[in-house]
Amino acid sequence: MRTDETIEPFLHRLCDAAADHTMRWFRGSVAITNKQSEGFDPVTRADKDAETAIRALIAAEYPDHGIHGEEEGLHNPAAALRWVIDPVDGTRAFITGLPVWGTLIGLTRDGTPVAGIMHQPFTGERFVGHEDGAFLVRDFGQGDGSARTRMATRDTPTLAQATIATTTPALFSNEERARYDELEAACRLARYGLDCYGYAMVAAGHADLVVESGLQAYDIVALIPVIERAGGVVSDWSGGPAAQGGKIIAAANAQLHAQALEFLAG
Amino acid sequence: MRTDETIEPFLHRLCDAAADHTMRWFRGSVAITNKQSEGFDPVTRADKDAETAIRALIAAEYPDHGIHGEEEGLHNPAAALRWVIDPVDGTRAFITGLPVWGTLIGLTRDGTPVAGIMHQPFTGERFVGHEDGAFLVRDFGQGDGSARTRMATRDTPTLAQATIATTTPALFSNEERARYDELEAACRLARYGLDCYGYAMVAAGHADLVVESGLQAYDIVALIPVIERAGGVVSDWSGGPAAQGGKIIAAANAQLHAQALEFLAG
Repeated sequence: MRTDETIEPFLHRLCDAAADHTMRWFRGSVAITNKQSEGFDPVTRADKDAETAIRALIAAEYPDHGIHGEEEGLHNPAAALRWVIDPVDGTRAFITGLPVWGTLIGLTRDGTPVAGIMHQPFTGERFVGHEDGAFLVRDFGQGDGSARTRMATRDTPTLAQATIATTTPALFSNEERARYDELEAACRLARYGLDCYGYAMVAAGHADLVVESGLQAYDIVALIPVIERAGGVVSDWSGGPAAQGGKIIAAANAQLHAQALEFLAG
Repeated sequence: MRTDETIEPFLHRLCDAAADHTMRWFRGSVAITNKQSEGFDPVTRADKDAETAIRALIAAEYPDHGIHGEEEGLHNPAAALRWVIDPVDGTRAFITGLPVWGTLIGLTRDGTPVAGIMHQPFTGERFVGHEDGAFLVRDFGQGDGSARTRMATRDTPTLAQATIATTTPALFSNEERARYDELEAACRLARYGLDCYGYAMVAAGHADLVVESGLQAYDIVALIPVIERAGGVVSDWSGGPAAQGGKIIAAANAQLHAQALEFLAG
């Protein structure tokens, strides 16, 4: 299986299927009228329904592939090709009506991410990466002709000029927090609460760094090809592979990555 | 001059004119190629050009009205009807490519906000309030028929169930910070970095509280009719009028507003 433009149409099909479910529940339009009990949670329902839809399409098209998702665990664990999915990354943004969550779908070969997509269906943005490069594809918009553009990360040379994002500093352990705070203080601007949208902004050339800890594989795998194919670097805080999750740094370029690692590495 | 549906078309014209300028510079597509010097700042250019365009339309249509904007100060200061504008509220979101900034245009009569709009041109959302109510108007989207919907705030009864937003706790003074932190700790969920988009989410029924300090009049005037006409309450931290800026709280309903004021009032 090639992972260039021949895989991209399938990634879009998976996103379409997920969006049918996530957008039913985003901003609560259905939940308000159909809510059946006090314990009902729209984002959990969106997550489950979207993952079921994604898994059904993969099973129909590639029955031998593995699937690793947040909601239903690991399917075909021995398969060389494995789909790694998080239907709603950024649940706190989702439940607050904010358009900075996303659907993450990645593909690994023998554990290495080879293709991935982040879809934000409310803004209609798809950030996709594979062998041919990284692209921003728009579902709709102002007719400016930019429906599909090749992405490139920024060449920001120093931390003093860099924009850094993290979901929230409160998620770090004390030791992690001390390192992160020093790094943030060396940067020009910090943004919080973005989850996958922060990584997408690094790929698209609008931000320079994302630093997080405690990630699951399905939080990061889809984003690695998007950032790497746009020219960025993704690793753990020691510079090792990021595909298992944990402590993660994404940087717009190798120079910034090296400067940030000096703060983060133990 | 009435401030019901007869004013809304003019508010949309002002937003259209502003968006022609802000969207040229958002995400840097023009800035990257046309940048003329190291000191060039896309958001400053967007702000200035959009405010000039808004002022020109107001001056042509209502030459006797007052205008108060961030960039060019106060015009016709003695006029009973005054436009209060901030072309790009949320400059840090703007320069990071995030779709949570907005163009704010409000109208006051003898100092009281009577109509206002927040436009997010990338997502195509217009949150508007006037005598007839508060409405979310979509520029484009997924064709779900919801191009114009009446907004209503949530009836969240207690802080323990509430979502609170602030631009960043770091902007508070020490005393303000202590009060805010206690209030945030009493809430269910906090979101940062939203500026005007947080107020829009309160009006649209997705969040419950916004608490900020150090606001200018043009940061809040446009949002007051949007939230109030959707059922919410906007005041300063003592419960007094909010139209001068300063320390501001916006709440989804009077009950939550009263509970939050117990933390914030001196």
